[in-house]
Amino acid sequence: MRKSVARELYTAGKLCVAAAGILATSTASANDDLMNAARRIFKPIPSVVPEMKDNPITHEKVTLGKSLFFDPRLSASEVISCNTCHNLGTGGVDAGPLSVGHRWQLGSRRAPTVYNAVFNVAQFWDGRAADLKTQAAGPIQSSKEMNSTPAHVLNTLSSMNDYVVMFNKAFPNDAAPLTFENFAKAIEAFETTLITPAAAFDRYLEGDAHALSDQQKAGLKLFIEKGCSSCHNGINVGGQDYFPFGVMERPAASLLPRDDKGRFTVTGVPGDEYVFRSAPLRNVALRSPYFHSGQVWSLKQAVGVMGEIQLGVKLNDTEKDDIVAFLNSLTGQLPKIDYPILPARTEKTPKPSVDK
Amino acid sequence: MRKSVARELYTAGKLCVAAAGILATSTASANDDLMNAARRIFKPIPSVVPEMKDNPITHEKVTLGKSLFFDPRLSASEVISCNTCHNLGTGGVDAGPLSVGHRWQLGSRRAPTVYNAVFNVAQFWDGRAADLKTQAAGPIQSSKEMNSTPAHVLNTLSSMNDYVVMFNKAFPNDAAPLTFENFAKAIEAFETTLITPAAAFDRYLEGDAHALSDQQKAGLKLFIEKGCSSCHNGINVGGQDYFPFGVMERPAASLLPRDDKGRFTVTGVPGDEYVFRSAPLRNVALRSPYFHSGQVWSLKQAVGVMGEIQLGVKLNDTEKDDIVAFLNSLTGQLPKIDYPILPARTEKTPKPSVDK
Repeated sequence: MRKSVARELYTAGKLCVAAAGILATSTASANDDLMNAARRIFKPIPSVVPEMKDNPITHEKVTLGKSLFFDPRLSASEVISCNTCHNLGTGGVDAGPLSVGHRWQLGSRRAPTVYNAVFNVAQFWDGRAADLKTQAAGPIQSSKEMNSTPAHVLNTLSSMNDYVVMFNKAFPNDAAPLTFENFAKAIEAFETTLITPAAAFDRYLEGDAHALSDQQKAGLKLFIEKGCSSCHNGINVGGQDYFPFGVMERPAASLLPRDDKGRFTVTGVPGDEYVFRSAPLRNVALRSPYFHSGQVWSLKQAVGVMGEIQLGVKLNDTEKDDIVAFLNSLTGQLPKIDYPILPARTEKTPKPSVDK
Repeated sequence: MRKSVARELYTAGKLCVAAAGILATSTASANDDLMNAARRIFKPIPSVVPEMKDNPITHEKVTLGKSLFFDPRLSASEVISCNTCHNLGTGGVDAGPLSVGHRWQLGSRRAPTVYNAVFNVAQFWDGRAADLKTQAAGPIQSSKEMNSTPAHVLNTLSSMNDYVVMFNKAFPNDAAPLTFENFAKAIEAFETTLITPAAAFDRYLEGDAHALSDQQKAGLKLFIEKGCSSCHNGINVGGQDYFPFGVMERPAASLLPRDDKGRFTVTGVPGDEYVFRSAPLRNVALRSPYFHSGQVWSLKQAVGVMGEIQLGVKLNDTEKDDIVAFLNSLTGQLPKIDYPILPARTEKTPKPSVDK
């Protein structure tokens, strides 16, 4: 679904139930129809790392980016790394609901996953970063998160010769490879490798009708017919466009804190108040708690809430179970990560600042 | 050196310069003499994982222990894991000087490394834990560190079926495999694999006279002759016995905080005030800042301080450089660690408590 179409649909005050009715319900070809409908709405995760238009992905850049991603010394306290909140061992997120940052300050929204983030239309819940390298430059400078500065990052990295060598290899055509921009590009390169192909749903989209159980197929059918896929579609089953949180019904204040205006703070457009990027649902079963406020711990409950506030539909117990079964088919194969041995600090490495 | 001998030596108020004089200085056999002296004092890191007398090391137990080591959900906040302070990417320690724990509280001593910890006589700076499994049960329950409880640990682990299966496989003969004791045993099993063989110094001890440079050999000779090896000996070049911090001269208050009585709090023996386990020096070049107070960031400066306060010797610049060169030969091969994909939390998993 193209952005403009999606926008019109929710502006009309009601989400598109675009696919409803296209599925035969009682014929012998029902299964084929379901697979064909799914193929029009979703795409499988590719098995190869996607290309970045302005940031060629090389082995050297990915290796460097992995070290940077795991290096806590880039934060002011030298305690917090990207992996602290985007833990690759727990679905690319932390325990939540909100992330714990510098001096134990809490973030304002649930950490989004880095897995498959490359397939999102933009980064952050409000899409304020156009791409992963722009995103990577954000939390490291946030006073509530890593509380660092480009100067601290560059002083830290340049103090360790192994890092200097890694930057030279990763950016061989640059006159001055060690820059904050290249730091962000290397992290982007690593994050493009954080894709999780070969979920049961991917195998289904690729033609294996037996990859999903009957219950998962029933859940997929409901997911399309009830209208979930109007917002949650594409490669990431979400993450492709922006929608109001609470189309049909105002969410409880616990789910939508009143002071979080969503995309409005990015665009300044009044209609964008409480608008968020639809959550990408790949590996969603690994990533409770749910929503940008992280206040719902049960996937079944989250499905129920979405039905009510976004679609005006009260799903029954069986329907919710079926949809959850389908969502479980979105859990893919997480990449194998060798934990990086980081360059040793030197006497020139800036000291940690735990109480700045 | 046996414990009782070492104890008598420092009780006499002066550290043994036991090996001084045993080394020929101007004969053709000087190199042989140095290697033979070194072999009497030190031992190479074995290339196989050591056996634990009451905790057989199995692949299943190590795999489980690795997941536990990296799992932040075992802490009250679900933010802090063993690896937070004993970061395997940075020499098995954090940035220091003191560790940041629950609610950003600071610990009271520099985090000791987990690498080669299995070869220490006991664990912690004051040796209050006899072994690694006793150690593993400590920080997780400390209100300043992980602030957890055995109940939180067991409720968390039993809420995830994959963990239950892993405990069953790791402890196949136990009627109830998932216990806090077995949690600690599994971490001990993993930590026994954290050994770093094949340092240049190991190859030297194994007979390769060319494994050390001339400067490193000069440093080794000084290390023995000046008396450093009286406390820093054995497999870990330290970690084998307890000694007062400040034998010849009182360290500055910044290096020895007055309220830290060291081993006295373990034994209650007045003579144990300001007594600490000698620091194991394996991979020491990876682990600044130094001393239990973590206040010295330069290895060369640390060598100078040790000479003055422990040996009453003012080392000159060349001597310090030579000893640092030798200490650099203690950096071994760190094991390759696959970052574990942890079991996904369920609705039964206890919620994080960030402000308890």
